[in-house]
Amino acid sequence: MRARELARAMPTVAVDTDAMQAAQLMAAERLPGLIVCREDGRPYTILPGSQVLRFLIPTYIQDDPRLARAFDEKASDEMVGKLARRTVHDLLPKPQDVDELPVVDGDATTVEVAAVMARMHSPLVAVVAGERVLGAITVGRLLSHLLSATSPQR
Amino acid sequence: MRARELARAMPTVAVDTDAMQAAQLMAAERLPGLIVCREDGRPYTILPGSQVLRFLIPTYIQDDPRLARAFDEKASDEMVGKLARRTVHDLLPKPQDVDELPVVDGDATTVEVAAVMARMHSPLVAVVAGERVLGAITVGRLLSHLLSATSPQR
Repeated sequence: MRARELARAMPTVAVDTDAMQAAQLMAAERLPGLIVCREDGRPYTILPGSQVLRFLIPTYIQDDPRLARAFDEKASDEMVGKLARRTVHDLLPKPQDVDELPVVDGDATTVEVAAVMARMHSPLVAVVAGERVLGAITVGRLLSHLLSATSPQR
Repeated sequence: MRARELARAMPTVAVDTDAMQAAQLMAAERLPGLIVCREDGRPYTILPGSQVLRFLIPTYIQDDPRLARAFDEKASDEMVGKLARRTVHDLLPKPQDVDELPVVDGDATTVEVAAVMARMHSPLVAVVAGERVLGAITVGRLLSHLLSATSPQR
């Protein structure tokens, strides 16, 4: 089994997509992350949902989440307002924080997909063929394949 | 809105649950992780799916996923066999790797939940009330709440 056979379609956004639109897409589809493409459509990276939160939540509260208790609903609305007039590019981790990406080639074996997820602690990898995004594989789907291959049914 | 209102039921396992059973549960329900409870039922930690893969995949392949190409289907089956006669406890990261857990109190505010997810890069937090697990909140659900609160519909 190759990565291209396990991949499922997943919405993609571009680096210049409106940040609020991207967050709303993730929220509406209950996705743990989105595939981000370059302006020319080539796959670029994954935007994890937790990264959107890292952009929204003030650093001092990330450092000590108990301080969030001083935030009322109005302050919380203002925080989400930080997404206005921003793009996906603004949400992504700074390049120096990212040395590699959870992206595999369509020909990758399931063990290779598992190795990339394990190495990067990622619940999701994007599957690409050259300059085209084929879809994504979640950790649940990959485990399901790895385990069913060893069950007596097969 | 408090964490207890956003939490949804999620299957839990115990530290002494059979490792293969836990992996099969994650696979069958397509979950990105499981809540792990102590033998006495008190919440203990989260087992992310990627951690199961870290247990299965040999370290040298995690270090260089391209080496996975030398793995055939039979080797892959043997790898999954490592789950036999193991418990969830064996899959968890060693205590020295974990300084805190993605767990919040039922009374936590949504901003506090967001801060914990952001800080820990976690797509999921467990919600507890004292010694009881109330459920879990995914990043998609949290974003959905944070964004809808600022939309004109409300």
